[in-house]
Amino acid sequence: MLTFIGLGLWDEKDITVKGLEAVKNADYVYLESYTGVLGVPVSKLKRFYMKDIILASRTIVEQEAEEILDKAENKNVVFLVVGDPFAATTHTDLLLRAIEKNIECKIVHNASIFSAISGTGLQLYKFGRTTSLVIPEKNWNPETAYDAIKENKENGLHTLVLLDIKIDFDRTYKTSRKFTEDKSFRFMKINDAVKLLLEIESRRGENVFEAGTMCLGCARLGSNKQIIKYAEAQELEHLDFGEPLHCLIVPGELHFMEEKVLELFK
Amino acid sequence: MLTFIGLGLWDEKDITVKGLEAVKNADYVYLESYTGVLGVPVSKLKRFYMKDIILASRTIVEQEAEEILDKAENKNVVFLVVGDPFAATTHTDLLLRAIEKNIECKIVHNASIFSAISGTGLQLYKFGRTTSLVIPEKNWNPETAYDAIKENKENGLHTLVLLDIKIDFDRTYKTSRKFTEDKSFRFMKINDAVKLLLEIESRRGENVFEAGTMCLGCARLGSNKQIIKYAEAQELEHLDFGEPLHCLIVPGELHFMEEKVLELFK
Repeated sequence: MLTFIGLGLWDEKDITVKGLEAVKNADYVYLESYTGVLGVPVSKLKRFYMKDIILASRTIVEQEAEEILDKAENKNVVFLVVGDPFAATTHTDLLLRAIEKNIECKIVHNASIFSAISGTGLQLYKFGRTTSLVIPEKNWNPETAYDAIKENKENGLHTLVLLDIKIDFDRTYKTSRKFTEDKSFRFMKINDAVKLLLEIESRRGENVFEAGTMCLGCARLGSNKQIIKYAEAQELEHLDFGEPLHCLIVPGELHFMEEKVLELFK
Repeated sequence: MLTFIGLGLWDEKDITVKGLEAVKNADYVYLESYTGVLGVPVSKLKRFYMKDIILASRTIVEQEAEEILDKAENKNVVFLVVGDPFAATTHTDLLLRAIEKNIECKIVHNASIFSAISGTGLQLYKFGRTTSLVIPEKNWNPETAYDAIKENKENGLHTLVLLDIKIDFDRTYKTSRKFTEDKSFRFMKINDAVKLLLEIESRRGENVFEAGTMCLGCARLGSNKQIIKYAEAQELEHLDFGEPLHCLIVPGELHFMEEKVLELFK
């Protein structure tokens, strides 16, 4: 059996009771370690589960999936994913391959950024398509986030902009430290995101994301260390939001109740 | 202190470890009992928490909120909500009033339908605005769902259509039965939803939702009794999906990976 378990957003206690029971009953525990990151080190999960954890790099999941699937044919294998297991789409392939082999699959859902943004007071019904900003590389600096914000604004909708992380798997997991402290872990900050969008605005000039555009910077959403700040883009560009993960929300039209809550974050 | 705790989607074990700890430490446990419904009776929650649960009707939460807030000034009060606590927007007012009174507030997030739909293989990034269909009443049969599907389709995006439930609080909770079995509990079925949308199509004729439109009927998503069926609207109209909750998804443009997963649900 292969059980996909969401870990939620922050620490070892964000797993559900159902998820924890499945971990306790597992013969093998994999932790997907290349698309998501909790706010606590893996060692803390190990102690809490009282189980060994196999760190699964992209290579293991995508190219050496047979190893996971072979085990799942006769044993209980759990595959832990930060957030909700399929929110990031990356693991659908593993699910499909398991089903093709007639391996019983289960999913244990959990919180993800897609619903945690409701903690800002913005209504989930009023979000349009979600977009993301990648850490810019040479010759690769797409404007899709700008386009998504534009499209959503035209329809009066809010936009969630997810910000890229880069995990150098081999280097990061050699230390037992909280791996967000490691230099091999990079994440896009709200400051970088705002800067990038303002740069695109200055090229395109379509009045979609300007210095005076009010938006929300959210850091560590769903944790007891979360920061939510509602301000003009030019102000967010220079605020220090601290540790990862960060995301940015560009609101569309606001309901008076949404405005009331946003006042709290000014 | 007032802690808003998401219960997730199905049963007593979908609460997070963090949420359960807060319940165990609570002096008062309220369960919001008018917008959401789990798949198990309240008695099961009581046994699992080993706590009394105060059922909170809309009247209690909206008009008699002072009672909750007064308690929260000096005691630990938890407010349980099915899914993720603010996904349904209804409780923002309670949060605001607590903050105005300088009551410390915490949020414990959990799975909600907004991310659980990723279990269908459809990518969350490709959903446009979410919409809902209400149980039609005399002179009240809005076409907003149809408009949302149209708008999303034009942008190549999927639409989640949430389906209404009606809980007659006073009658429903007089029984100790699983309250979805009670006649005072009504929910909109996938069949009704499809019928309604086809009726709107026949009035409007804008080729948005037709008999041959492929869509997904999802029942009890996130539970071990979930059913996902991908078929033409006219077929879904006549399938029996069983117990609540139901929802409908109308896909936009499909990525080949999404198509591959949807094949499983044909």
